Amino acid sequence: MVALAAEYGTPLVVYDEACVRAMAAAYRDALVATGVGGEVAYASKAYFGRAVLRIVAEEGLAVDVASGGELDAALRAGIPPGRIHMHGNNKSAAELDAALTAGVGAVVVDNAHEIDVLEARCAARGITQTILLRLTPGVSPETHHYISTGQVDSKFGFPLAEGAAHEGVARARRSPHLDLVGLHVHLGSQLLDLDVFPQAAAVVADFVREVGPEGLAVMDMGGGLGIAYTPDQKPPPPAAFVEAVAGAVADAWSSRGLPVPRVTIEPGRSLVGRAGVNLYEVGAVKDIPGVRTYAALDGGMSEMLRPMLYGAVYSPLLANRAAEEADATYRLVGKHCESSDVLVADARLPHVRAGDLVCIPAAGAYGLSMASNYNGLTRPAVVFVRDGHARLVTRRETHDDLFARELD
Amino acid sequence: MVALAAEYGTPLVVYDEACVRAMAAAYRDALVATGVGGEVAYASKAYFGRAVLRIVAEEGLAVDVASGGELDAALRAGIPPGRIHMHGNNKSAAELDAALTAGVGAVVVDNAHEIDVLEARCAARGITQTILLRLTPGVSPETHHYISTGQVDSKFGFPLAEGAAHEGVARARRSPHLDLVGLHVHLGSQLLDLDVFPQAAAVVADFVREVGPEGLAVMDMGGGLGIAYTPDQKPPPPAAFVEAVAGAVADAWSSRGLPVPRVTIEPGRSLVGRAGVNLYEVGAVKDIPGVRTYAALDGGMSEMLRPMLYGAVYSPLLANRAAEEADATYRLVGKHCESSDVLVADARLPHVRAGDLVCIPAAGAYGLSMASNYNGLTRPAVVFVRDGHARLVTRRETHDDLFARELD
Repeated sequence: MVALAAEYGTPLVVYDEACVRAMAAAYRDALVATGVGGEVAYASKAYFGRAVLRIVAEEGLAVDVASGGELDAALRAGIPPGRIHMHGNNKSAAELDAALTAGVGAVVVDNAHEIDVLEARCAARGITQTILLRLTPGVSPETHHYISTGQVDSKFGFPLAEGAAHEGVARARRSPHLDLVGLHVHLGSQLLDLDVFPQAAAVVADFVREVGPEGLAVMDMGGGLGIAYTPDQKPPPPAAFVEAVAGAVADAWSSRGLPVPRVTIEPGRSLVGRAGVNLYEVGAVKDIPGVRTYAALDGGMSEMLRPMLYGAVYSPLLANRAAEEADATYRLVGKHCESSDVLVADARLPHVRAGDLVCIPAAGAYGLSMASNYNGLTRPAVVFVRDGHARLVTRRETHDDLFARELD
Repeated sequence: MVALAAEYGTPLVVYDEACVRAMAAAYRDALVATGVGGEVAYASKAYFGRAVLRIVAEEGLAVDVASGGELDAALRAGIPPGRIHMHGNNKSAAELDAALTAGVGAVVVDNAHEIDVLEARCAARGITQTILLRLTPGVSPETHHYISTGQVDSKFGFPLAEGAAHEGVARARRSPHLDLVGLHVHLGSQLLDLDVFPQAAAVVADFVREVGPEGLAVMDMGGGLGIAYTPDQKPPPPAAFVEAVAGAVADAWSSRGLPVPRVTIEPGRSLVGRAGVNLYEVGAVKDIPGVRTYAALDGGMSEMLRPMLYGAVYSPLLANRAAEEADATYRLVGKHCESSDVLVADARLPHVRAGDLVCIPAAGAYGLSMASNYNGLTRPAVVFVRDGHARLVTRRETHDDLFARELD
């Protein structure tokens, strides 16, 4: 980390390629081991950098995209279009057109309006598009309410209650331009507990029994496996997640006499979160006697918004004196003109001074993908490390980039 | 708005140039009227677009910048360097060098570490830089804790308690390379009540009596005036703010037998917030019987983060049928793959359908300046309107922009 800071500057985001590959392989192999068949699709919203998209594809994964921008990220990374799933609660006609032009493997249709738009677009082209329907199962996992998506009161999907989902399936089955091959649910993100999956599977299996299983060969159970941001968080490993999810589907379908579908899972955070580390240099250190000591880093909420947005807690390390005892407490803040710009509220570190290097691990998901230019800060460079060698995969943003869209 | 959406597409940010000019003039004229002398400096972190920087400069305002990026925004906009104030709690050596090279009017020094770095940089160039010292007065205004900055427990400024501020003043006065001309405080943002200013002025005046008023010709009282996001919020007008702030300083200094300093004020949000309107097109509308109705817009938390980050509430309008009675309630959501992506939780609007245009007023501050590319969404175009004519000042972001930093 010290060498990387010297070579590439700070703030810097460093990914461990082996970690991404190991997590992808763990998901892939675990799904094969269940015997149900299906696909692991990387939820690229966690981080849509080109390097990571290529790596997960090399490991045999499909890719989920949630907008025209993410779709283009996947296409530019060389992901085969048939391995791309197009998500989104409010896809524009232009985004659906881009997906059809690319020939994506599946469009995950969110709502009745989208059926209308997609059908019209397909009809105009004289084609039939493979789709899944996203359902809102009415199941609430234990997580931050900002990232819980399975509950009835949700912008996502066809609600199971009141007939909207039944109507959606009937409507899709009637259309000559839509090939409905399965259903989709996503319960929430940063889940540390798998208990919610049997419940969700049962709800969806009941629905499948009602509408009939014909053609519904795929059950996409979404993603959501959490990672450890702090030592006390103990997420299950990918294999346990896959077994729980695939097992829940197999049990729910077979116990109702339904043919067990192939299972798709969509990990995002758990594939890339642990692999990424943010690296900062310490600037001003300010001791306020009787209150606390602030240590200011050379980045902040512009590339690391999760603490401010979700109250997320991270566990930093001192990179250049990592072996020293962590016997002091600091409030690690950024350089933004805002009091909320606190990266770690109570960081246990060795005594720090200007020039020290701070690592924040588990920063690989929902960091860069949510990064802004707040206060005119430019976004960090990204380095991928493998077998002791580093390569720059995203260059640091410049002021020319920052002002490129300004017209005179 | 309907014509602008047709010409420039959505999402679009539309600024009313007359509103920006009127607010700038109101501040400027009110400060002149107080007779204390001083400067109005636009806090560009609210929105550092080139067009707005030029307009406030044309209206005679100085410009506050809080990073090397904002400094460059001001320089590229043609702001005279002498009218630029350089802020920041953790300025890097490179940023200070850029400020010295440009010849900024003042560096607002935040902490003891910065004095060391700045002094060394000035010594190397053989120059003397005009500075203010930022103090933490230990005064807490009534606002969201994310944007309250005056309290003792703050990353900003020299705390008055325990001698840090006294030492800072003494240290700056001793330096041949630093010309200390005044002090700075900033109490917080989105203030709707001016009661806190006399209290802050008294605290600082006591400090000035202790360290002696020699050379302290400027008192920068920061900014913070709020705007009305909803009809029930009633912020004072700029003139009342200026009178309250300048009056508080004049009273506090003169009552202690101190020479009354010139007063600088630093409005940001109140200069540009009301002037900006976000314009969206409605896509999917989803009624969940017995729960609520969602209407999805074609943008979201990537260009409008304040609702998610601060719980900010906005008051939308339907642009294309504005005269119709607002007799329905919608949850206006964006198109991001996240449940928190709620722009307005309970919007009263006429019945909306796909293709309708929604305006969100009072969106001109801390919108674009915090915008991200989350979910691969590209940032909106910006249009300035004056006397019935519109001009594009920032072009819509493209996918080529989005991926420009990716290396192969």
